[in-house]
Amino acid sequence: MDIQNLLDDIVGSVRPRLGQGEVANYIPQLGAVDVGQFGISVATGDGEVYASGDAAVPFSIQSISKVFALALVLAGDGDGIWKRVFREPSGNPFNSLVQLEHEDGIPRNPFINAGALVVTDRLLSITGDASGAVLDLLRQESGNSSIGVDDVVAESEARNSNRNASLAHFLASCGNLENPVQDVLDNYILQCSLEMSCTDLALASRFLANNGVRVDGTALLSSPQTKRINAVMLTCGTYDAAGEFAYRVGLPGKSGVGGGIIAVVPNNCTVCVWSPGLGKSGNSVAGVAALDEFTTRTGLSVF
Amino acid sequence: MDIQNLLDDIVGSVRPRLGQGEVANYIPQLGAVDVGQFGISVATGDGEVYASGDAAVPFSIQSISKVFALALVLAGDGDGIWKRVFREPSGNPFNSLVQLEHEDGIPRNPFINAGALVVTDRLLSITGDASGAVLDLLRQESGNSSIGVDDVVAESEARNSNRNASLAHFLASCGNLENPVQDVLDNYILQCSLEMSCTDLALASRFLANNGVRVDGTALLSSPQTKRINAVMLTCGTYDAAGEFAYRVGLPGKSGVGGGIIAVVPNNCTVCVWSPGLGKSGNSVAGVAALDEFTTRTGLSVF
Amino acid sequence: MDIQNLLDDIVGSVRPRLGQGEVANYIPQLGAVDVGQFGISVATGDGEVYASGDAAVPFSIQSISKVFALALVLAGDGDGIWKRVFREPSGNPFNSLVQLEHEDGIPRNPFINAGALVVTDRLLSITGDASGAVLDLLRQESGNSSIGVDDVVAESEARNSNRNASLAHFLASCGNLENPVQDVLDNYILQCSLEMSCTDLALASRFLANNGVRVDGTALLSSPQTKRINAVMLTCGTYDAAGEFAYRVGLPGKSGVGGGIIAVVPNNCTVCVWSPGLGKSGNSVAGVAALDEFTTRTGLSVF
Amino acid sequence: MDIQNLLDDIVGSVRPRLGQGEVANYIPQLGAVDVGQFGISVATGDGEVYASGDAAVPFSIQSISKVFALALVLAGDGDGIWKRVFREPSGNPFNSLVQLEHEDGIPRNPFINAGALVVTDRLLSITGDASGAVLDLLRQESGNSSIGVDDVVAESEARNSNRNASLAHFLASCGNLENPVQDVLDNYILQCSLEMSCTDLALASRFLANNGVRVDGTALLSSPQTKRINAVMLTCGTYDAAGEFAYRVGLPGKSGVGGGIIAVVPNNCTVCVWSPGLGKSGNSVAGVAALDEFTTRTGLSVF
Repeated sequence: MDIQNLLDDIVGSVRPRLGQGEVANYIPQLGAVDVGQFGISVATGDGEVYASGDAAVPFSIQSISKVFALALVLAGDGDGIWKRVFREPSGNPFNSLVQLEHEDGIPRNPFINAGALVVTDRLLSITGDASGAVLDLLRQESGNSSIGVDDVVAESEARNSNRNASLAHFLASCGNLENPVQDVLDNYILQCSLEMSCTDLALASRFLANNGVRVDGTALLSSPQTKRINAVMLTCGTYDAAGEFAYRVGLPGKSGVGGGIIAVVPNNCTVCVWSPGLGKSGNSVAGVAALDEFTTRTGLSVF
Repeated sequence: MDIQNLLDDIVGSVRPRLGQGEVANYIPQLGAVDVGQFGISVATGDGEVYASGDAAVPFSIQSISKVFALALVLAGDGDGIWKRVFREPSGNPFNSLVQLEHEDGIPRNPFINAGALVVTDRLLSITGDASGAVLDLLRQESGNSSIGVDDVVAESEARNSNRNASLAHFLASCGNLENPVQDVLDNYILQCSLEMSCTDLALASRFLANNGVRVDGTALLSSPQTKRINAVMLTCGTYDAAGEFAYRVGLPGKSGVGGGIIAVVPNNCTVCVWSPGLGKSGNSVAGVAALDEFTTRTGLSVF
Repeated sequence: MDIQNLLDDIVGSVRPRLGQGEVANYIPQLGAVDVGQFGISVATGDGEVYASGDAAVPFSIQSISKVFALALVLAGDGDGIWKRVFREPSGNPFNSLVQLEHEDGIPRNPFINAGALVVTDRLLSITGDASGAVLDLLRQESGNSSIGVDDVVAESEARNSNRNASLAHFLASCGNLENPVQDVLDNYILQCSLEMSCTDLALASRFLANNGVRVDGTALLSSPQTKRINAVMLTCGTYDAAGEFAYRVGLPGKSGVGGGIIAVVPNNCTVCVWSPGLGKSGNSVAGVAALDEFTTRTGLSVF
Repeated sequence: MDIQNLLDDIVGSVRPRLGQGEVANYIPQLGAVDVGQFGISVATGDGEVYASGDAAVPFSIQSISKVFALALVLAGDGDGIWKRVFREPSGNPFNSLVQLEHEDGIPRNPFINAGALVVTDRLLSITGDASGAVLDLLRQESGNSSIGVDDVVAESEARNSNRNASLAHFLASCGNLENPVQDVLDNYILQCSLEMSCTDLALASRFLANNGVRVDGTALLSSPQTKRINAVMLTCGTYDAAGEFAYRVGLPGKSGVGGGIIAVVPNNCTVCVWSPGLGKSGNSVAGVAALDEFTTRTGLSVF
């Protein structure tokens, strides 16, 4: 199959959906993004990159950063983190406190906000600079050293962080944070405020399709560790719509409220899509539709 | 009936319970209190005071302060507060976030922590010094100008305030705080850390048994407002055991984790009991037993 | 005060509210009742009865029957029932399964449906005919031997009993029913389908205002038992609006989705109001307003 | 790799775990099963079968039947069932009513009990005999015409069906059952009470590893339909431990409280393991360990 043609086709077929969904508007900066944009990139294991649409436009990666923070904690620390966070789907919204209270401060998985705060806390303990460590990884794997924080987004997030502060203080009240609440929040906000393009993210994610091997040939993760991150992405990566995503797309994936989604075809390639309009579960409407078409037409699916 | 003899009898009969329950231990200061203490005071509408046991020993009033903060907000502001807090029993622990999330940041009532934070927030807006306003009221009504904050308790509370900070940030994320989170927490902690004796509290509560009239003869609250505070105390004043308290004691009451409880016999008298050992719902074991005996023997009950 | 004039006044002042609220429509029979009706009756301890409006019109008593079933179980059995049902406000809708599941099949109180099913189950064990025992009590206390089941309502309830069947099977699955599920449901439906007027209910409730003494001078309940039923009514008698009812009315009360409410002024009188339009918590809109006016103008309130 | 040797190895290595976990004991029949048993079978796409341990011993398939009922409904009816049941992980126990109440009677997925009752209801509407249709499918695909219901289990289930009856009546109260509650329960109980061996189940599941093609070469399901059942199995197939199962095993799977688990390697083979000792989430302890070893040693995993 000609991948470039396929991506161009997908750009065409998602066009009618570009007005659908709502742009995240909890901060003005995200709410101002043009909803009519869509990009898609594929990075293969043998080093090829294909892109179409707005694949070079940087966007706020938001929760997609959680995958990279988790990878760094598993790389640095092994399985210890699983004592502080479960790896089960939550059946609840990503920023919910309900289950956290019922389960004594152990978040359901590392991809809901509470779990990601625990992962960031641990990464901060290991590295002294959690958001810096994530940024370094993303720059190296994508080969794009200009990736950085969108300061306006970061400042806006900081001024609107009460819900995450509520989660973080709750975790601290249960003894499940090692660092001061404000330090964890600061690092979390910075990693969520990174700006990258579809192509940057497809490249940066390749180790997940490549048994944990980095672009320089060294191992970030073992093969079993990599499979396990993919498993957590499939069951928990797309908010409270992970079942729907598995059903329609059939690939491990992680979404962000900036409208980006990365998906992994194990031992084959990564795909990144982006379009700002979100469905009610917080996943990009056009992005999910694009991945659905991608897996249907290529037959690439883990099932 | 000879009230003094009755109180002395009660001191005798609760003695076997003084080892029961657990002292609040979320801060060391409270955990260090001698569990063997018990005091009881009655202040009548015609100005008499009766006391027995450790009725003159100061203790940390904790959540009992919530009644006085609510009274001041109603006095200063009328019914506006009821747009920001419900007045229904919660059916949940006093520090729970579950219902708050399900009900979009409107706390169930002013006596669970979330609701009390909203009340303190409003009192801070009205007065500029919420804890100072509560302190002034308590000093004037009790006639004891030496009442003050236990600084060691207040510092300890401040160092262990993550759960309340979680609640306050959640309220703020729902737009239900007017002042900065830290200012609200600071005032809340100070009002909870006030030290008073049973006699101080029985005296300070008299306006609740006297149609809202203060010791100086002026009206803090109207008669309907006073009845309504008593109604909220009866349905919501003793944590998730308000039904049990109504069943056994049959009076409006408000408890604190310091082991104190105030109870109101409308148009008659107030009673304050204190003993540090708490039952699983957070109410003083010996205190509830003493009030049970008091209402059984006097026949004073609203039912 | 001239009670008859007061009741007539109330009939006038609630008129503008008679279109408000929604008639219960889970069964056609209740949905067909004319929403424009309102009645009020007062029965005093010294045997007087006052009535106004549609006080003689029979209506479906529905959940008001739960008070009488509870009284009979306490009379027959003492405190044993409290091992099978709590007496705390639920903070949840009257037909909710959520708390029941979290608390292992022990209902929060005897006035939510789950708790009432347990009470009916126990009354069935004691008497062999739970609904018959309730009917006998109501006929004797009201002096109206023509009180009976509305068969059309009962049949309609039976055809629409899935939610209660769900609760009953859940209780059975937790070992908290003694009799077959269908027998308990049948008795529960019959007692809920009794038809009575405001005057019938005010008369039948008098023992709650009279220390448990029946119309024939014998004791149904002891004085403490009676106070305790009143306490449970005040904290749990009006669905998830018990706090609001205590705040506005300030009396122990029990409502039904037929639009009736009984209220108790201890040692004084009982009041029964009826109007079919229900607020969102299931209590009669005009009925609550009428009781509010009654207590405001008479000053009769337990607070 | 020599599959037979691998299975024999696994039989050896799980032996130390055979005392672990608890046998399901909600009915005596299941509680009496010898916990020391373990079997494993693999059925490949090209018709080979490998087996070791107690692979020929029949056991109660319980919830594994839910996969086959779902397949028949999708085959007979297309996507209509998804209007009546979601396909998201629940984050709650398999027999919970909590989420069902919060989500108005639409079960979270077809593999929790509530969802399976809806599927059985629909299969009953389509076929007139839901459990018979499941039995026919299982006999034909396994080639074992002696498969049948364990009558003692079925009778015992029927006598202990209050929790499922509670769920079914709740569904009916929300309008989400087409057939009488008792008919749905009867069919559900019969399909859960089927007795099969590991080899029977591995054979009967082959269509899930073979794009929906049955043993006779006809298509039960389309390829996309088959992938989607596998996706639902992966996200929801192993109770509230689906994340853990994906993490450790990395295959779509469905477990039953009889101790059986089927797992699917798409386009390759099926695996069935059985051992009665269950972990706290209801999955066979030795079964999960065996599948973990199987995927680790073969490298067969969807990730």
